[in-house]
Amino acid sequence: MTRTEPNRSSKSDSENSGGGGGGTTAMRVIVPLQGVVQGRGGLFLGSVIPCAFFYFLQFYLKRNRKNEPDSGEPSPDSDPSSGSPDPTRSQSVGNLTELASLPRSLSRILLSPRLSGGAVSISGRAGCVLKGGDSPYHVGQKRVEEDPYDESGNPDGVIELGSAHNTKMDWVSEDPGEAISDGLCMSGIASYEPSHGLIELKTAVAGFMSEATKNSVSFDPTQIVLTSGAASAIEILSFCLADSGNAFLVPTPCSPGYDRDVKWRTGVDLIHVPCRSADNFNISMLVLDRAFYQAKKRGVRIRGVIISNPWNPTGTLLSRENLYALLDFARERNIHIISNEVFAGSVHDEGGEFVSMAEVVDTEENVDRERVHIIYDLSKDLSFPGLRTAAIYSFNESVLSASRKLTTLSPVSSPTQHLLISAISSPKFVQRFVKTNRERLMRVYAELVKGLKELGIECTRSSGGFFCWVDMRGFMSSYSEKGEIELWNKLLNIGKINVIPGSCCHCIEPGWFRLCFSNLSERDVPVVMNRIRKVCETCKSQNCFFGI
Amino acid sequence: MTRTEPNRSSKSDSENSGGGGGGTTAMRVIVPLQGVVQGRGGLFLGSVIPCAFFYFLQFYLKRNRKNEPDSGEPSPDSDPSSGSPDPTRSQSVGNLTELASLPRSLSRILLSPRLSGGAVSISGRAGCVLKGGDSPYHVGQKRVEEDPYDESGNPDGVIELGSAHNTKMDWVSEDPGEAISDGLCMSGIASYEPSHGLIELKTAVAGFMSEATKNSVSFDPTQIVLTSGAASAIEILSFCLADSGNAFLVPTPCSPGYDRDVKWRTGVDLIHVPCRSADNFNISMLVLDRAFYQAKKRGVRIRGVIISNPWNPTGTLLSRENLYALLDFARERNIHIISNEVFAGSVHDEGGEFVSMAEVVDTEENVDRERVHIIYDLSKDLSFPGLRTAAIYSFNESVLSASRKLTTLSPVSSPTQHLLISAISSPKFVQRFVKTNRERLMRVYAELVKGLKELGIECTRSSGGFFCWVDMRGFMSSYSEKGEIELWNKLLNIGKINVIPGSCCHCIEPGWFRLCFSNLSERDVPVVMNRIRKVCETCKSQNCFFGI
Repeated sequence: MTRTEPNRSSKSDSENSGGGGGGTTAMRVIVPLQGVVQGRGGLFLGSVIPCAFFYFLQFYLKRNRKNEPDSGEPSPDSDPSSGSPDPTRSQSVGNLTELASLPRSLSRILLSPRLSGGAVSISGRAGCVLKGGDSPYHVGQKRVEEDPYDESGNPDGVIELGSAHNTKMDWVSEDPGEAISDGLCMSGIASYEPSHGLIELKTAVAGFMSEATKNSVSFDPTQIVLTSGAASAIEILSFCLADSGNAFLVPTPCSPGYDRDVKWRTGVDLIHVPCRSADNFNISMLVLDRAFYQAKKRGVRIRGVIISNPWNPTGTLLSRENLYALLDFARERNIHIISNEVFAGSVHDEGGEFVSMAEVVDTEENVDRERVHIIYDLSKDLSFPGLRTAAIYSFNESVLSASRKLTTLSPVSSPTQHLLISAISSPKFVQRFVKTNRERLMRVYAELVKGLKELGIECTRSSGGFFCWVDMRGFMSSYSEKGEIELWNKLLNIGKINVIPGSCCHCIEPGWFRLCFSNLSERDVPVVMNRIRKVCETCKSQNCFFGI
Repeated sequence: MTRTEPNRSSKSDSENSGGGGGGTTAMRVIVPLQGVVQGRGGLFLGSVIPCAFFYFLQFYLKRNRKNEPDSGEPSPDSDPSSGSPDPTRSQSVGNLTELASLPRSLSRILLSPRLSGGAVSISGRAGCVLKGGDSPYHVGQKRVEEDPYDESGNPDGVIELGSAHNTKMDWVSEDPGEAISDGLCMSGIASYEPSHGLIELKTAVAGFMSEATKNSVSFDPTQIVLTSGAASAIEILSFCLADSGNAFLVPTPCSPGYDRDVKWRTGVDLIHVPCRSADNFNISMLVLDRAFYQAKKRGVRIRGVIISNPWNPTGTLLSRENLYALLDFARERNIHIISNEVFAGSVHDEGGEFVSMAEVVDTEENVDRERVHIIYDLSKDLSFPGLRTAAIYSFNESVLSASRKLTTLSPVSSPTQHLLISAISSPKFVQRFVKTNRERLMRVYAELVKGLKELGIECTRSSGGFFCWVDMRGFMSSYSEKGEIELWNKLLNIGKINVIPGSCCHCIEPGWFRLCFSNLSERDVPVVMNRIRKVCETCKSQNCFFGI
């Protein structure tokens, strides 16, 4: 209404106002000020004072509402974050006043224990964690747990190609018992070691990391913080680098674990930046930059970019130029880089050059090293998933200090620390281990790719890590996420193999699957191929989608 | 100005306003509405419309400011949560558009790597964690690390009476080596065990917990979730029971670790409910209830109450009636109970009856069991601080499910799990261990109390746990927190003993100290007494405060 009459004179406005002003307090407050202070000042005061008044009014009404007696209805459990019900307030307060003058042994009887206090609710965020259990990632894992494949014991069981573990490495030929009994002396178990790792272990880990990166970089043990697994390492870094409501950019397809590690407890969001099959799933700096500005426009503060190298799930390696471009991007946008290098020791492609972010930072003077944080996982490369030991390697002293403190909440136990010191302190052993591991991965990978090719299935070239990224778009009933899940379902229930569908890796294109081969021996590969063939034949007979 | 003339008539106000109204837009917006809508409606619209206008104005000014070229100045590091600077935006966007059409190897040169992106900031909450390092709790710990007492090697070093560890227990007389080598077979280390604990370990832990509670209750292994230490157990429960911005009630003095475990990463607050020396530091249900309603009035949602039994730091045991009153309170207020029973196996008072919350819940039909969550710590009672293994024992299936998932972020490693299974699976061993541990604690405690008495120092009666709660009010220079810290400082620097001042336990009365005796052998007690005597004499000579 006021917008349609903007040209009325101020005089007639005020006269109207005066004529209609029936003596409300609001008018008395606003009008004199506008009479006294003209121009910008009047505009300001004429806005601020009613604002303040309005807030006081709200506050007054809210207070009055609070003092009304509670309704006595329990809150619905569907909204756990709503205010707690308080059904027995007046009664119980009365009782408690009496309680003070009563001996404690009588108090229970008076409080009438049969009264229920309403539905017991958990936190809203725990509710979200609970809901997260229905994704294919978890359903597949559960199926494997219930019915695991065993060549002789359970040949019809589900084969695990979902989890990125390396369980077939026989720890070379050495007797591990010796290392264990050496490392686990009584003092080692009973003592209270620093939760972020003993310096002896950090030194050993630095040596192992150097060996894993083919001695291209020398790691400083004082820049290492050890945590109980890569998941907690990523969580600690997320906590240290971002506040609740901030976000990280993550080029996709990405590790399916980030939703848990980054988002569950930190309140930090992930903004997925899609990479496409047409670019061989390489990062486009342009798309990354666009995502940054789109987030900024929406008021979301981006605190960093999470990359993995070797890339999870594609197995590709980031080139030196990729790393420089990312460093430049991080510096220009004033953000951090979390470089997830948990498979650095498992680069199995002889032609592939793995370049650690640490190497680039080490060799280049003009790099803001304080933005760079690397994650390294001993459980992965050492083929000891149960060790649950990972390392944060950072160039930022504040991040290191805060991380050290936070490891109290996810520490490495003393027995595990001593065990690891014994296991990886021998350079000879480490060298042999890394070599044997790489050779085994290379052999199984080659077998797998060959087998897939025979079935007409392609995958991206994987140079490192425990997985390959398989293109099964041709076997979907429809080119959609639904089609992908249907195919995943067939692989799990008809083929009895558990793989990770691309949707769990936030891949924008349906029909891609992560297939972990590290759990397989070479003898297992033909079994897997037979099972995939079975599924492919079902798809063909059902006229699946061959549009790609 | 308006406040001094509240009784002016509305007419004269509006006339004044009209006379002074030089034709600003604000006036045209407000005044006609007040002219048209009288009474409450006018009051409402006269407030809301300028409010909205003011917001649009702010929005408009903000947008305009954003479109101005960035200054290129780095953001001040002192406010890490402020918006990220963006010094090179226009330049870099231009460059990146070009980048798309350039080969990647050239991109770095064009992006001019020497330009700094501004100060590298960490998250605001990590900043808070960093600041937390200056409390007496941490300073004392650091001093002990730097200069630890050793009877023969470093007799002038600092004696640790701050940390609640039990390092003098010689694991009875049995050879632990056997248990270790039995437990740590290769398969145990290499396999990927559930992060929340193998069922074999949970069964062993349930047996140990029963033994620790003198078989007064039988624990169900399926209600156990294992985590890497009590700190992460409390954190996981806080996360599951409360959302960010909610709070727990904690009667004080309380464990100094709660500030870290509950607050650091969950965004949950603690509301301290003071207990007083006049009540022997017992919980007053009346004060608890008052704290609940005061919080509610302030709009803070209370999700639970955290208790410890045996109480940390006083060492007292909660009576059965205490527990019933707390359960009634929790039910009536529809909140949870976290019962921290990490010292249940270390009850050393033969006359004291320890009642686990699990026992009350088990024997009573009319209890809302879903509100009850217990924390148990194997590292404490087993005298293996380095084991970092604790248990959540809950009666709430949702909390158990969410906790199981969250243990991925703080898992118990497989070697530690297998080691523990071997160590505590023998009932005979467990029985003997618990008995020997209790007897040792009882002897040292008796010695300590005797020694303190001789110095004229009293303490509350400690029936369980590793500490006693010592009244040193008579030795302070002033009855204040400052006086307490001065005395703590003397104990650390003159007496060379590290104790925890009451302020770290949020005790409302100054002059109380937590003194952990579990790290002492009986031979150490006279050394500690001599050192305390030295400090007391200094205090006396300086005319300290003897008002209490």
